[in-house]
Amino acid sequence: MRKVIVQKFGGTSVSDTDKIKNVAKIVIKEKENGNDVVVVVSAMGHTTDYLVKMAKELSPMPSGREMDMLLSTGEGVSIALLAMAIQAQGYEAVSFNAMQVGIITENVHSKARIINIKTDKLRQNLKEGKIIVVAGFQGVTEDGEITTLGRGGSDTSAVALAAALNAERCDIYTDVEGVYTTDPRVVPNASRLESISYEEMLELAHAGANVLHPRSVETAKQFHVPLRVRSSFKLDNLGTLILGVDKMEIYRPVAGVAADLSQTRIVVCDVPDKPGVAAKIFSKLAKEHISVDMIIQSYARKISNTNDIAFTIDTNDLPKTVTALEELKSEIGATGDIQVDENIAKVSIVGAGMIDRPGIASTMFETLADLNINIRMISTSEIKISCLVDKDQAERAVKALHKVFELESDEVADVKGDLPNV
Amino acid sequence: MRKVIVQKFGGTSVSDTDKIKNVAKIVIKEKENGNDVVVVVSAMGHTTDYLVKMAKELSPMPSGREMDMLLSTGEGVSIALLAMAIQAQGYEAVSFNAMQVGIITENVHSKARIINIKTDKLRQNLKEGKIIVVAGFQGVTEDGEITTLGRGGSDTSAVALAAALNAERCDIYTDVEGVYTTDPRVVPNASRLESISYEEMLELAHAGANVLHPRSVETAKQFHVPLRVRSSFKLDNLGTLILGVDKMEIYRPVAGVAADLSQTRIVVCDVPDKPGVAAKIFSKLAKEHISVDMIIQSYARKISNTNDIAFTIDTNDLPKTVTALEELKSEIGATGDIQVDENIAKVSIVGAGMIDRPGIASTMFETLADLNINIRMISTSEIKISCLVDKDQAERAVKALHKVFELESDEVADVKGDLPNV
Repeated sequence: MRKVIVQKFGGTSVSDTDKIKNVAKIVIKEKENGNDVVVVVSAMGHTTDYLVKMAKELSPMPSGREMDMLLSTGEGVSIALLAMAIQAQGYEAVSFNAMQVGIITENVHSKARIINIKTDKLRQNLKEGKIIVVAGFQGVTEDGEITTLGRGGSDTSAVALAAALNAERCDIYTDVEGVYTTDPRVVPNASRLESISYEEMLELAHAGANVLHPRSVETAKQFHVPLRVRSSFKLDNLGTLILGVDKMEIYRPVAGVAADLSQTRIVVCDVPDKPGVAAKIFSKLAKEHISVDMIIQSYARKISNTNDIAFTIDTNDLPKTVTALEELKSEIGATGDIQVDENIAKVSIVGAGMIDRPGIASTMFETLADLNINIRMISTSEIKISCLVDKDQAERAVKALHKVFELESDEVADVKGDLPNV
Repeated sequence: MRKVIVQKFGGTSVSDTDKIKNVAKIVIKEKENGNDVVVVVSAMGHTTDYLVKMAKELSPMPSGREMDMLLSTGEGVSIALLAMAIQAQGYEAVSFNAMQVGIITENVHSKARIINIKTDKLRQNLKEGKIIVVAGFQGVTEDGEITTLGRGGSDTSAVALAAALNAERCDIYTDVEGVYTTDPRVVPNASRLESISYEEMLELAHAGANVLHPRSVETAKQFHVPLRVRSSFKLDNLGTLILGVDKMEIYRPVAGVAADLSQTRIVVCDVPDKPGVAAKIFSKLAKEHISVDMIIQSYARKISNTNDIAFTIDTNDLPKTVTALEELKSEIGATGDIQVDENIAKVSIVGAGMIDRPGIASTMFETLADLNINIRMISTSEIKISCLVDKDQAERAVKALHKVFELESDEVADVKGDLPNV
């Protein structure tokens, strides 16, 4: 039986007709390898920004339903153009939007989750030898309402299609060459990882490495879909393969270092040391859809019988968070301030290999101490250690950790784009 | 029971967000009149040209299916934006593409005909008090393939929706103020007609007046849908109402004068005067999808027992026509040349009132004779008389006929755009 390969191309890979021709070549090459090919594409380049701009001109708060109707047109353009470009090379191709395929999602706008993908039409067209081009990012409810999947949606579409079709692999083509040991814009001799486990990738993604959206990695992990991240423009480079930790040999304790500059630290001071207080705070925040990352509760002060609860949130959620906490303050009997510190960064080391190798955490802490970088909070998981440091120390911390865990490459990574604000 | 009004806005009426806001106001005003409103919109301004340009960059002959996938995205944008603009004014609105409504067409790309329109979703949403915005120009086959309706498609969508919903009226908003007695760019004091019959409108449309596509008028006539053509920008002007001839009082013998400069005259000389020759010629042309307009067969010459067959075609079809006739020449035994004359214009007068008023034709011929304009062919229908004249005489002919049939207005029509090439 022929193998199915799902390929996904993001907006920068299809931003003009020349780039679409390049994508057509990549797609045809995979077909020529003897595989059945399903291609998922995003909207062209800045289409989405342009559509959002017009919507904002018409309404300060456009309805989610109409926004999804609007944005889904972006992929409608790119799928048809790519199908034409493939046909122009003499291959059979057919494009489908999410409604035509039956990419069924829950009835939620702007961030729907995929429930089910119908495969009859896809399998029939693959059987007829056609290359199939599917619109990413979009879905449809059982009632025929158009939805979109939110950030990283096209990656998720591709992985979900790969799972539904029992694909051999899902290749995510993008403008970076793979997953690096850290952001190559910060550390020019960061190494590209040949392979990484889903778990490590998830921690790196959450830790601020913007290669793949965590949702797509979660989906790949859940359905055991091997994912490859590679460049649309440098085809001699195979990128990074992301797969189950059971399928890879862990040869290194630390896979990568990441910094996340988008968090803010909140401290709720002098809350009574009694059961249920933390639960009240975090259930209130959950109700407001505020994601909390690191959480530290201090030991109770003997005299006042109070403690401090510190946690980090996404800086975008700051106004909502402060409002929610002010509302809650008297209810929980907090007598102190609510302190807000935006001048922080979360620096993390990630590696499935650290599970059975002691001393990784202490090496991290010592490295930061040697640089005279103060650690303000620590959190750990089985395969990650994160330290909260001052924002202006993040770059030094990343560079030193990258070096001490021997992640450097002999080559300087070729990256485009501006340095992130570290 | 509330009345349903269908409104249609073309590309120039929704070409930017300010114009979309203007359309929202017109829509809301109709809703405030106590009617249920269904709005049909075309793609914004030059969207279609832009999409076609990209398609041409990718493929010299893009497949019809993918072209329809591509072009249908244009209305996807305008329907969502208009729904948002209506919502921003505090009214409930919902947009649907053709697939969501169920505007079912035959399985033909780029010029599909509507077979059926499902009305359950529309009626349900109208019942809920919502203003419905529907994508014009597009349809879907029973198998879920996206189709487009070809030239004048959005007008046809609007009329078909009005028929399906048993609407009170279908208002076509456009950039002209209505149907005029002749092209106001040629005759500045042309009068706007307050009403005109479907039949007259069809003849005027075929005769070259570009206000409405004949297909939409045919559909309106078939389903007895009153049509109003009016300006999106001058709302104090009610435009022109198009309705059944049985419902209007015919107070004028001639409703309008039109010139069509897009035709070419073909003469097949010296064909044998025997049965079946004309049939062979015109069935061959029909097979090649070449529409023939005026046809004249001369009296047979007694000596040679041959005659000439002359007819007019759309100039765009000229190369196809010549090829087809050359192929046919020996088969039908034509011994003469195939003459081609592009330097012609068809000037027509149209009026349901001419049926029972003699002397209209002679007035037309005399008027042209007085101007020393040679009539090269004549064809007549119940409500139209067309004369073929030299192209450079068309403007003089139109002006004189407009005057002799007393079609002038006291006011000078306010029109934009360049003079057509007369």
